[in-house]
Amino acid sequence: MADYIDLNGAEQEFGDTAAQREVRENDRQYVFHSWSAQGQINPLPIAKGEGVRMWDYDGNEYLDFSSQLVNLNLGHQHPGLVKAIQEQAGRLATIQPALANDVRGELAKRIVEHSFEGARSVFFTNGGADAIEYAVRLARQSTGKRKILTRYRSYHGSTGTAITMTGEPRRWANDVIDGEVCHFFGPYAYRSAFWAETPEQETERALKHLEEQIILEGASTIAAVVLESVTGTNGVLVPPPGYLAGVRDICDRHGILMICDEVMVGFGRTGEWFAYQGFDVTPDLVTFAKGVNSGYVPLGGVVISEKIHNAFEDRSFPGGLTYSGHPLACAAGVATFDIFEEEGIIERVRDLGSRVVEPRLKEFLEKHPSVGEYRGKGLFWALELVTDRETREPLVPFNASGEAAAPFNAVVAACKQAGLWPFAAGNRLQIAPPLIISEEDLIKGLDIIDEALTVADSYYTGK
Amino acid sequence: MADYIDLNGAEQEFGDTAAQREVRENDRQYVFHSWSAQGQINPLPIAKGEGVRMWDYDGNEYLDFSSQLVNLNLGHQHPGLVKAIQEQAGRLATIQPALANDVRGELAKRIVEHSFEGARSVFFTNGGADAIEYAVRLARQSTGKRKILTRYRSYHGSTGTAITMTGEPRRWANDVIDGEVCHFFGPYAYRSAFWAETPEQETERALKHLEEQIILEGASTIAAVVLESVTGTNGVLVPPPGYLAGVRDICDRHGILMICDEVMVGFGRTGEWFAYQGFDVTPDLVTFAKGVNSGYVPLGGVVISEKIHNAFEDRSFPGGLTYSGHPLACAAGVATFDIFEEEGIIERVRDLGSRVVEPRLKEFLEKHPSVGEYRGKGLFWALELVTDRETREPLVPFNASGEAAAPFNAVVAACKQAGLWPFAAGNRLQIAPPLIISEEDLIKGLDIIDEALTVADSYYTGK
Ligand SMILES: Cc1ncc(COP(=O)(O)O)c(C=O)c1O
Ligand SMILES: Cc1ncc(COP(=O)(O)O)c(C=O)c1O
Repeated sequence: MADYIDLNGAEQEFGDTAAQREVRENDRQYVFHSWSAQGQINPLPIAKGEGVRMWDYDGNEYLDFSSQLVNLNLGHQHPGLVKAIQEQAGRLATIQPALANDVRGELAKRIVEHSFEGARSVFFTNGGADAIEYAVRLARQSTGKRKILTRYRSYHGSTGTAITMTGEPRRWANDVIDGEVCHFFGPYAYRSAFWAETPEQETERALKHLEEQIILEGASTIAAVVLESVTGTNGVLVPPPGYLAGVRDICDRHGILMICDEVMVGFGRTGEWFAYQGFDVTPDLVTFAKGVNSGYVPLGGVVISEKIHNAFEDRSFPGGLTYSGHPLACAAGVATFDIFEEEGIIERVRDLGSRVVEPRLKEFLEKHPSVGEYRGKGLFWALELVTDRETREPLVPFNASGEAAAPFNAVVAACKQAGLWPFAAGNRLQIAPPLIISEEDLIKGLDIIDEALTVADSYYTGK
Repeated sequence: MADYIDLNGAEQEFGDTAAQREVRENDRQYVFHSWSAQGQINPLPIAKGEGVRMWDYDGNEYLDFSSQLVNLNLGHQHPGLVKAIQEQAGRLATIQPALANDVRGELAKRIVEHSFEGARSVFFTNGGADAIEYAVRLARQSTGKRKILTRYRSYHGSTGTAITMTGEPRRWANDVIDGEVCHFFGPYAYRSAFWAETPEQETERALKHLEEQIILEGASTIAAVVLESVTGTNGVLVPPPGYLAGVRDICDRHGILMICDEVMVGFGRTGEWFAYQGFDVTPDLVTFAKGVNSGYVPLGGVVISEKIHNAFEDRSFPGGLTYSGHPLACAAGVATFDIFEEEGIIERVRDLGSRVVEPRLKEFLEKHPSVGEYRGKGLFWALELVTDRETREPLVPFNASGEAAAPFNAVVAACKQAGLWPFAAGNRLQIAPPLIISEEDLIKGLDIIDEALTVADSYYTGK
């Protein structure tokens, strides 16, 4: 059997082939890459993906603990998704948004049915950033207010409004594009911004902080508070008990909408269809992308409450895009719902998370001094790496690069060397494998991390 | 043979079927539509698309003279595009942007090779709006300047920066999102903003106006001038001789970048690979989407000059998206280039445009008093409908809706009634069929328009 199929459909063996050289050359010559200094990167050419694994052209195998960019919830080349795309391509690849389409309506229906009580409709976009853009527009247009509150340590995408809302360094170089955005602090017990000592205190103080900021910014000027239900790239920050419900309460009392960004955590990642469902809270708008179809076809969107939907019954919504509700993308979304049911994905995630991952991370905490804390939910976890448990000094400084980032990069390199592609962020090894991962592969990956943590330990300077 | 295949893969006959009712119901119940008052629309369910035609569930056939949203350059269900998507879905549906991928690199190469001299690389996005967002970011980041000049009577998309750049009513309700955007007037000889009487004068004055505005806004604050090479939705405004070259010259003299928005006109629409190529001009950045793969999979991007690319050799570009360079989308893009070559699309467009469309529109001008002007290029044309040729009073007022729009709506209804789906914008019937259209179908569509123009004529009040 061939190792992989090349661009021309020819069977190929792994190795330093002409195919590999051409991929690398075209990439370096013609592709401009996200978030990079183009002259300082050397992207690894990937020859093949299957399930939880991918292979480079030399045949090196990687267990993907990052689900690509935490989108590949059903793994590479899931037969059900591939079939849905192939069939829809054969039926009707595309149709404009102003016409009605069967698979678009079907997916909207499934999403609404799996959403909060009072959810009414879905506005489809192409990805996460534009989902955020349109959620904000729905909030602004329906409230008549302009200001948007978002959190530090958040990522909401990279278009004009979304990058301004982002609460981490990727925003910095972009200055302010949308002038009506303001950031607040959220709960993060391990590095509390509120001098809290318990999760209860963290919740209480985070809520007091938010309400204080709302009062000082002026509730009458604020359209919405936007938060990742569980913060993703910025640390797998699971909200402490009562926090999200408390935010909901504050929003209600001040006439402000609550938007949950579920681009990264929606569709099973935390063991719920949507992460907010694990916290007994009803948002007004919910953004999604990634997991909706595992990113097999670009798709995102916004789930809209009855109340906000109705604000646009007789008034035109001023926004839109050519590919809203794209049939090919939606077909992969409908198949996602089917596969989730058939394979009991939600139940698997809960089971594997609590039975396999969590106890093992607890063990890491006991065994590896460099592990300051582990936290997470479902198949979404973070190990906070430190050089000193007492001071909680991170393994590398905030936003480190180059030499300063070397200790963390060494840990990442150890993972890759051993065949694991980790989700690395700041000073954290994060864990986000495809949700279809077998128990065996999950353990295999955790074993590799276990070993790589000895590298982190070697930088430990605390007691 | 069945009329169409329903969502469950079952063969169906046209008619008031349960399938049709379900599509309509799901759409009305669950899908939130672009640019609409949700309670006032009733989107037509489409059962099938093939080539230049689509059918509703009752079996009514429509010749698509709008190429959906001017994206379906190769028509519905082109076998070459369907095959490319099905094969890529079977090979590798997706991979993250930070890795190198064969089909992504191949498409980037083809695009660069068909672009201006000095083009270096491609940054891929999901659609047109984000292509604009990233082009602006590339301009701002590489020049260190912030202000963006765009034209009135333009559409650049609907995300934060793109909607602010848009120079038509769709922007109005959104207030200013990006504060560093400023609009200027472009050439539009039929309704000159410069009191010009000849195309030469229009060019000269439009350039003088632009330079004056640049001087008064402060060249040192302006990163880029952005223009649709041929304005699309806002009127198929073909730049008069010398205009684009003049803009290039002004930009050069003032140290400002020139960005051509080719989202609608790129990939053959005007009989060139990119429309700017018909005007002897070399832009710094070019946005594209739609025609790159006929919208079969969401895809857009920015072609980047060597100079701008090099500005990010050692400095990180602060932007990115999960689906940048999506393999499935890129596969349909590569197939597009193959099909264009095999079917001689560019040559067909030139031939059909000049031999079939233009003479017929000239005939309309002679025959129908309501036709104030026709203009266009390739397979992209507009008929400017007026009630008085002398005053050039448009058939309906600018941005008309409801009753005020009734005369134009009657013309559109006459087209649809006769089986033609027109590209209707303002007071203009625009013509933008798939580029694969046969001469016979093209004539058939023009015949329908000919007939519908008698409806426009009935509102004529001039001499
Ligand atoms: C929480 C969150 N919101 C928004 C986005 C932006 O999504 P996209 O990259 O599809 O624009 C991301 C991407 O990682 C995300 O994690
Ligand atoms: C010239 C131009 N630019 C940008 C866009 C926005 O593209 P999209 O709808 O894919 O966001 C359009 C869409 O019609 C367009 O015509």
